[in-house]
Amino acid sequence: MALVVQKYGGSSVADAEGIRRVAKRIVATRKAGDQVVVVVSAMGDTTDELIDLANEVSPSPPPRELDMLLTAGERISMAVLAMAIATLGREARSFTGSQAGLITDERHGWARIVNVTPGRITGALDAGAIPIVAGFQGVSHATKNITTLGRGGSDTTAVALAAALRADVCEIYTDVDGVFTEDPRVVKRARRMPRISYEEMLEMAANGSKVLMPRCVEYARRYDVPIHVRSSFSDKPGTWVDMHVPDETEEAGMEQAIISGIAHDKSQAKVTVVGVPDEVGEAARLFGLIAEAGINIDMIVQNVSAISTGRTDISFTLPGADGQKALGVLRDAQEKVGFEEVRYDDRIGKVSLIGAGMRSHPGVTAKYFDALAKAGVNIQMISTSEIRISVVVSQDDVDAAVNVTHKEFGLEADEVEAVVYGGTGR
Amino acid sequence: MALVVQKYGGSSVADAEGIRRVAKRIVATRKAGDQVVVVVSAMGDTTDELIDLANEVSPSPPPRELDMLLTAGERISMAVLAMAIATLGREARSFTGSQAGLITDERHGWARIVNVTPGRITGALDAGAIPIVAGFQGVSHATKNITTLGRGGSDTTAVALAAALRADVCEIYTDVDGVFTEDPRVVKRARRMPRISYEEMLEMAANGSKVLMPRCVEYARRYDVPIHVRSSFSDKPGTWVDMHVPDETEEAGMEQAIISGIAHDKSQAKVTVVGVPDEVGEAARLFGLIAEAGINIDMIVQNVSAISTGRTDISFTLPGADGQKALGVLRDAQEKVGFEEVRYDDRIGKVSLIGAGMRSHPGVTAKYFDALAKAGVNIQMISTSEIRISVVVSQDDVDAAVNVTHKEFGLEADEVEAVVYGGTGR
Repeated sequence: MALVVQKYGGSSVADAEGIRRVAKRIVATRKAGDQVVVVVSAMGDTTDELIDLANEVSPSPPPRELDMLLTAGERISMAVLAMAIATLGREARSFTGSQAGLITDERHGWARIVNVTPGRITGALDAGAIPIVAGFQGVSHATKNITTLGRGGSDTTAVALAAALRADVCEIYTDVDGVFTEDPRVVKRARRMPRISYEEMLEMAANGSKVLMPRCVEYARRYDVPIHVRSSFSDKPGTWVDMHVPDETEEAGMEQAIISGIAHDKSQAKVTVVGVPDEVGEAARLFGLIAEAGINIDMIVQNVSAISTGRTDISFTLPGADGQKALGVLRDAQEKVGFEEVRYDDRIGKVSLIGAGMRSHPGVTAKYFDALAKAGVNIQMISTSEIRISVVVSQDDVDAAVNVTHKEFGLEADEVEAVVYGGTGR
Repeated sequence: MALVVQKYGGSSVADAEGIRRVAKRIVATRKAGDQVVVVVSAMGDTTDELIDLANEVSPSPPPRELDMLLTAGERISMAVLAMAIATLGREARSFTGSQAGLITDERHGWARIVNVTPGRITGALDAGAIPIVAGFQGVSHATKNITTLGRGGSDTTAVALAAALRADVCEIYTDVDGVFTEDPRVVKRARRMPRISYEEMLEMAANGSKVLMPRCVEYARRYDVPIHVRSSFSDKPGTWVDMHVPDETEEAGMEQAIISGIAHDKSQAKVTVVGVPDEVGEAARLFGLIAEAGINIDMIVQNVSAISTGRTDISFTLPGADGQKALGVLRDAQEKVGFEEVRYDDRIGKVSLIGAGMRSHPGVTAKYFDALAKAGVNIQMISTSEIRISVVVSQDDVDAAVNVTHKEFGLEADEVEAVVYGGTGR
């Protein structure tokens, strides 16, 4: 008898019909002989509606109260899901994050899990009941206040519970059939990946793939929790995300696909600081200021300085939402640091080629740039890791770049595979 | 510096505008120098909407899960209210029933408070913050499950907290200016009572007045918590409900109003069991069966038995909602008990005259029946206590009976006093 943690996103439980469908799936798993622990997100757009309500009374709601408010969302979905399971003749018991033992630090809105003490969950399992746990939420060990985990929090809840309960698998249900070589909304003949390593999934997630959040994949990798990403709307197999175990063919350099998939991200912006004095510590000073403002920087490129002027240009990318904040920080520092000007471009996109296979295959970069050139796409910035090559291009070029690359690296399926079942997101 | 517990009902916080208005009132109290603890109900129709959602997936939701679901309502209102207070420059901290120490037994849907341990509330007060507590909810000491207190539960939460905190007053905010001599929707020139004893308020509440629930008044009487019922839409004084301290004029029989007010109730039904064998224990047997079914009976009348037959008729009133259940119980028992038939009438109404003054004034009953006769109202059943006379009449006669009696006992205000500010209920 396996222990399965199943996580259902908001689009899977968007309405009473969705909740009934999910309840049937849970009971079917139970009847097949496995133990099930369920993690559920808020129904459909509930969280957004609650945020709208908060904004009606406050331009900047206190984070503690915003967390208290938002956690009402999963409270509703989990209780209704438990009711739907009861009508199918199985006992289900809903638990808040706090009741389920999701202990966090006190950072409201982006709390980190510091401990998981799922005593009430194992108790419910022992009693033959199906525990339904509210995703996305926890309780601070220091203040006893209710916290939320931030974006993708429900996936992290599921993986954390799976780790603490030593579950055999953490199934993440969404509205597509798994992780594809690219977003099927952009590349029609994207192919479902039957299996991908934590490492590659992390690169996919960090570079724009929205199926899983990097944080949840990191957690799964640390505790070696196998994830199975699949659709709650079908019975098809999805994508397994787990440890990379090289097999014989791979050792021999045969069969292993060079590239696993492509990810793209249109939400970033590019900042160029022009005419920075090329002295030791100037770049560190700039990025220190940006970091102090709580802004995460992604790619950085520094030009060779012009000998005539002793000055250089530094470009970096960051989330577009942080753009204005970063510009403010830089302008405040202009006089002190002594650079000439700041340029800002939010019409950019990042396209990343990801695959553990590229480690042992030289020439991937050349082939990639060749494909982009064929598509007439100009490269603005480049950044690489051992298993990833990312380029920044004009936002208008992203779709073309993605489609050409997908084809050139032989990622296309023989026919259209992907179906997007639910609404727009999870 | 006084400590004030303020309770705001659903109609007072029905939308963002209402929440902002309530926030202003709370901050004004705080600025006037008093400590404030707030208890809040769910916004407007939230609770009904959540019940509808539950019924969409289940004809009879498990009580534990229904409580988990419904408690989302106050979670939303209290967090948003705390945010609204923050925008006015005061720190507010919201607390669930469980966090506020509202410990109950495990009866889901109608839990009783068994202990109040408001450590986090006093902590928040000590820190200079305004605690906002979710009404209507608690946590079971035995199972650690979330419970709800049932109808009128938020008022009970407020009184229980006021008792535990030794507050100076518990202000119950509603959409009328206080407790009136009759429902202003039925009697236009109903008069606001500036003060009423717990005892009289209990009789008013138990006999159809909807401003406070009997349970909350009982709790206040037991712990001697003064209640001030008033409107959140105006600054007018409301009605004080507190201990009855006879003053000198009253001792001398002067000035004291004989009658405080009138209550009516159209929600009851009358059952008549015809031809019950007039033997010892038969009535007890009948009512034993009704009690076993969990049905509360109000008035009971037994006729003198006819000597010729040795049989008698027994009539009783009960909540109309329990009518069919009671009929089922009786029909099942017909053969065993041996009565002739059961008659059912749900077109009845109860009109109750309430006043501590009637204790020392003979002739109140005669005057009351006289008034009813004048209005052409036929009396079906009568029941009395030391400070109340209730009659059951045809439902069509209730409004006339109430208006005539109100006038005859001199309860009318000189002009129309009452304003109903909000929607239809609390």
